[in-house]
Amino acid sequence: MEPEKQTLLNHHTEKHFTAGEVVRDIIIGVSDGLTVPFALAAGLSGANATSSIVLTAGIAEVAAGAISMGLGGYLAAKSESDHYAREMKREQDEIIAVPDTEAAEVAEILAQYGIEAHEYTPVVNALRRRPQAWLDFMMKFELGLEKPDPRRALHSAMTIAISYILGGLVPLAPYMFIPRAAEAVVFSVVVTLVALLVFGYAKGRFTDNKPFRSAFETALIGAIASAAAFGLAKAFHP
Amino acid sequence: MEPEKQTLLNHHTEKHFTAGEVVRDIIIGVSDGLTVPFALAAGLSGANATSSIVLTAGIAEVAAGAISMGLGGYLAAKSESDHYAREMKREQDEIIAVPDTEAAEVAEILAQYGIEAHEYTPVVNALRRRPQAWLDFMMKFELGLEKPDPRRALHSAMTIAISYILGGLVPLAPYMFIPRAAEAVVFSVVVTLVALLVFGYAKGRFTDNKPFRSAFETALIGAIASAAAFGLAKAFHP
Repeated sequence: MEPEKQTLLNHHTEKHFTAGEVVRDIIIGVSDGLTVPFALAAGLSGANATSSIVLTAGIAEVAAGAISMGLGGYLAAKSESDHYAREMKREQDEIIAVPDTEAAEVAEILAQYGIEAHEYTPVVNALRRRPQAWLDFMMKFELGLEKPDPRRALHSAMTIAISYILGGLVPLAPYMFIPRAAEAVVFSVVVTLVALLVFGYAKGRFTDNKPFRSAFETALIGAIASAAAFGLAKAFHP
Repeated sequence: MEPEKQTLLNHHTEKHFTAGEVVRDIIIGVSDGLTVPFALAAGLSGANATSSIVLTAGIAEVAAGAISMGLGGYLAAKSESDHYAREMKREQDEIIAVPDTEAAEVAEILAQYGIEAHEYTPVVNALRRRPQAWLDFMMKFELGLEKPDPRRALHSAMTIAISYILGGLVPLAPYMFIPRAAEAVVFSVVVTLVALLVFGYAKGRFTDNKPFRSAFETALIGAIASAAAFGLAKAFHP
């Protein structure tokens, strides 16, 4: 590339935020981990269960939820990985078997941006001369697929599962120390509300959204979920 | 585009599978809906709870889970929508303020595929003459962002929440008819196992993965989650 263009690129920093995979997984895990065990515990407390029953249900739910999310996330990521490999093989076969059709697809992609034949043809021909680059171009610009990291599947699963467990322990902790659930629930509500607000704020900061609004929304989801759980538990077990 | 190229494109159908948003949301919702309420109910049954307690906990969990996933999904989709709008505004400002830098970025994107200056320069200039197309090009090819559908957020949330509820009712149904949880759990295990296998198979067909392996994996997650819930529930409430 011409030195002048490279200089322009070096001097100009684009400030586009891209949330990391790890942050996203932590947010997914903690979001559900704080909310569902809290609502379940609050609901059962309202139905006059003992702290012992609440803890039993809560811990069982946290374990089941963490495994479901973690293993589920792992399998989903592995499935994306397999999907990418299969699509890449298909594109590769097509580049070899029907190169004129693939070349026409490159032309069609560029033509969508108002680029005319005499303008895009040199680009199409350049790609035809470099099959590996051509394949990468089709994967990204025709299929919109990014090459997934093979270790990401396991890493993602562990992050989500651990985040869910840590999230879930927050609302359940009071029940470990206070045998009367009707008492423990008060502490659970306070502790979880604070956690939801703090976590919602952090989520807003990381995703470059309005953090105070995010804090409010996160706490509101917790409140709605626990109100629903409370109401239904009372209805089923007054 | 030349008629010859268009003909090639019309005759050749690329068989690339792109899972619909709705299918993905149903899979997300039912996956967790089948697994977590089942494991919670089985775990509590093992800890000698009555069907009444199991149902109370199960229904409360399904409500809380559906709300958390549904509302959480809605807010996440809205957040993506806001993010796209902000990024688009930023790109637009940069195209107006520092067009030479943005043009250099287009060059850099194409240069990654071995395309040389004399080949990509007509394309860069064509984009510079059409600011709207240039903006769309940067959004897609520099940032990799697709324009989100504004109604998708609500639709996605409803789909996930309803799927979670329908999934959760399957393992809980036996407890509605059989008062002894130790009896109900047997039916719950059988019914849920069948549902997990069937759903796992369907998931595999939709995502173009090996359906029998998907059925096995889905059932296995359910088994592991319920074993963990069972073990922990017995430990906390023998």
